[in-house]
Amino acid sequence: MANPSPGNSITLRVSAPSNFTVTSELAAAAAAAGAAVTALDVTESHHGSITVDITANTTDDAHADRVRDALEALDGVSVLHVSDRTFLMHLGGKLEVVPKVALRNRDDLSRAYTPGVARVCMAIAEDPSAARNLTVKRNTIAVVTDGTAVLGLGDIGPAAALPVMEGKAALFKQFANVDAWPVCLDTKDTEEIIMIVKALAPVYGGVNLEDIAAPRCFEIERRLREELDIPVFHDDQHGTAIVTLAALTNALKVVEKKIGDVKIVVAGVGAAGNAIIQLLIAQGATNIVACGRNGAIHRNEEHRDAHRAWLAENTNPDNFDGTLHEAMTGADVFIGVSGPNVIGEEQVAAMAPDAIVFAMANPTPEVDPVIAARHAAVVATGRSDFPNQINNVLAFPGFFRGLLDAGVADITDDMLVAAASAIANRVDASELNASYIIPSVFDPHVAGDVASAVAAAAGTSNERTQS
Amino acid sequence: MANPSPGNSITLRVSAPSNFTVTSELAAAAAAAGAAVTALDVTESHHGSITVDITANTTDDAHADRVRDALEALDGVSVLHVSDRTFLMHLGGKLEVVPKVALRNRDDLSRAYTPGVARVCMAIAEDPSAARNLTVKRNTIAVVTDGTAVLGLGDIGPAAALPVMEGKAALFKQFANVDAWPVCLDTKDTEEIIMIVKALAPVYGGVNLEDIAAPRCFEIERRLREELDIPVFHDDQHGTAIVTLAALTNALKVVEKKIGDVKIVVAGVGAAGNAIIQLLIAQGATNIVACGRNGAIHRNEEHRDAHRAWLAENTNPDNFDGTLHEAMTGADVFIGVSGPNVIGEEQVAAMAPDAIVFAMANPTPEVDPVIAARHAAVVATGRSDFPNQINNVLAFPGFFRGLLDAGVADITDDMLVAAASAIANRVDASELNASYIIPSVFDPHVAGDVASAVAAAAGTSNERTQS
Repeated sequence: MANPSPGNSITLRVSAPSNFTVTSELAAAAAAAGAAVTALDVTESHHGSITVDITANTTDDAHADRVRDALEALDGVSVLHVSDRTFLMHLGGKLEVVPKVALRNRDDLSRAYTPGVARVCMAIAEDPSAARNLTVKRNTIAVVTDGTAVLGLGDIGPAAALPVMEGKAALFKQFANVDAWPVCLDTKDTEEIIMIVKALAPVYGGVNLEDIAAPRCFEIERRLREELDIPVFHDDQHGTAIVTLAALTNALKVVEKKIGDVKIVVAGVGAAGNAIIQLLIAQGATNIVACGRNGAIHRNEEHRDAHRAWLAENTNPDNFDGTLHEAMTGADVFIGVSGPNVIGEEQVAAMAPDAIVFAMANPTPEVDPVIAARHAAVVATGRSDFPNQINNVLAFPGFFRGLLDAGVADITDDMLVAAASAIANRVDASELNASYIIPSVFDPHVAGDVASAVAAAAGTSNERTQS
Repeated sequence: MANPSPGNSITLRVSAPSNFTVTSELAAAAAAAGAAVTALDVTESHHGSITVDITANTTDDAHADRVRDALEALDGVSVLHVSDRTFLMHLGGKLEVVPKVALRNRDDLSRAYTPGVARVCMAIAEDPSAARNLTVKRNTIAVVTDGTAVLGLGDIGPAAALPVMEGKAALFKQFANVDAWPVCLDTKDTEEIIMIVKALAPVYGGVNLEDIAAPRCFEIERRLREELDIPVFHDDQHGTAIVTLAALTNALKVVEKKIGDVKIVVAGVGAAGNAIIQLLIAQGATNIVACGRNGAIHRNEEHRDAHRAWLAENTNPDNFDGTLHEAMTGADVFIGVSGPNVIGEEQVAAMAPDAIVFAMANPTPEVDPVIAARHAAVVATGRSDFPNQINNVLAFPGFFRGLLDAGVADITDDMLVAAASAIANRVDASELNASYIIPSVFDPHVAGDVASAVAAAAGTSNERTQS
């Protein structure tokens, strides 16, 4: 059973008889029903009765109902109202568009708007590069989705994807002062999406593609990179690859192995799997076995999909032809970006000594991390309730901060590697251990370090181009 | 010659000899060069010399250069730096995207982002109407342009249009707490623009079309109104029509004439002219002569353009066939939404007694308002440096506030008229006179009054639909 989570936090407003033990009885009943009580506030007190707000984490909506029923079952207790704190947080949306300039009087208006703005417009018409200094383009990126691969929820559509994109935009601002705007497109047509993003580009200094289903996402990313003069980042690919490389760098230090020597099994060959594999190869990995739903990708079959064909050519040096479970035997590293429970204890036990397991499927990992830890030396997940959370939040805010600061037009592998190193290096040698291979998402220095590393890598590659 | 304007405000940093009269000499020299000095600050004082910041309004860039030269010509004075206060205001853009929710710790993150956000997404996937409550859609509109008819500047492109759209968005937030986001499209293709705006719609509760050239703007507006379930407003049409009707309502009170009795000449049959004429007809105007570049639109010729054909059928009851200048003879009202100086003193003198002149071309009106006022009883312009500024800022923020508050899907004439009445009624009978027919753009009550009027009109039309 899942643990109660703050993402399923509810507040129950309860009327109860006024006596000395009632609050402890309420708390006990909620706890007995499996809720994790985080606060208990008496909000009203009358002769004979009190009103109490009980705030508690639950596992899901059905559990919240059971907690409610458990309180209702107490003698003289009635639940007046249950509010869902997650929904309350989303009411009215999570972003607002705020002027940076005050418009207090006519002089302000004359400068920010007509007639003064006309001179600013003409300056840009005469020199389009001036837009970076004189408009929001300097600090603003588009968070673009078609709503087809949202979290683990699949194709829920652009409107239902919006809360995620708003959350993403909030993280960009909070962690790296990047202004990000959600662009949730009501089309799944690859050419339309490409055309639309190109048409929107004048307002933006960068594009973050998000939660677009594979393989469409590859074509969209490739074409936009070719056809736009602003950087195009696909977080499901590049963001995930950066944080995975950062975590793997430190995990390999813990077990004292080298990336060129280890056998790495990757479960999942969608957007994330492909990008991770490419980056690991660029960093010197030589023995990667990529597994899709039908097992290892090898050279004994025809691959119509260009990405699978590339994987067949560039991974699996022994041309192993078997299942994911079989591939695990003797592996040093497992990287899961697939689905819940695709491997079990047996497969982890069959790995090489000092094995590394990254089970990153969300919300349910490829293997229960507690079970994996019985056999593996280092275990990481995408979840916040276990050690070693591999979370893209460590990468994307600082990465775009660096891109915007350096005025980057194209993202290079060097920048991805630089970002991964910056994240890995936030864990000092004295801190590094099997339960602490990656910094906290709330480490206030990560985004700045990543931004500096990316901007430095951009400077290096500019020099290289010029020489 | 134009007057010095705060839209052309500069700050000159000057090094000057330290003596008792130097600041007054600097101010006198700037004034003699035609600048309107608004501030003079000594920022540094050394033995023998001081540094002074002189802030002054100028007429244009060439004038700013002359002011600089005039100061340089003074004995011992050197101009260290000239900064343009309008450009300074636009540096880095005028908007930012700010989270409404704090993301201080992991619990916040669990609710605003993963895993909690998944439940909010699913609630919208199951009931799309929930997006209005749980996302920014509730309070957010798109300000859409293709950059083809920006201010009086023409087709300057989407990047150069962005400072205007940012300013517009700032006004929406400041005056009516509407979150507005600039959408500057790098395409002039009508079908592409329609397709793009439809694809963007999941994020927005309304669309404000802006500065799109006629006649394309008519087709885009018509189709989007048909095909979207959120309101589509074209500010150049509807916004201008609302404020013009508001001003005319009060101007007619001043001269004690009735809209059904007056002869109205409209110069300009683009977006604004068409919308004004339609709204005035809906309000009972019977004798309108619409004039394009080739004079009055009449029924003696074929009109291939549907809008001109409509005007030919629905205006000009006497089927007058002549020039704009000829049409002015005996007119009670002139409404200019065309270009600079298309009429002169002679034409205003030829109007009926107690004439009304709205010369709204920007920045240079159809006739100098000072000259017009020699003959007309009421004169208004689009400029802030004359009385009676007819400014769309009076309409659009409150109008969208009302649309969003009422959850309106379609804009009706009733809503436009209601907004115009709300603006007109902000001028109390005791205040009304020839120099005060329309409230100040900084009247803090206008937006709220307009919003209430629009929401009330929406309620009325909903009832009508249901009955």
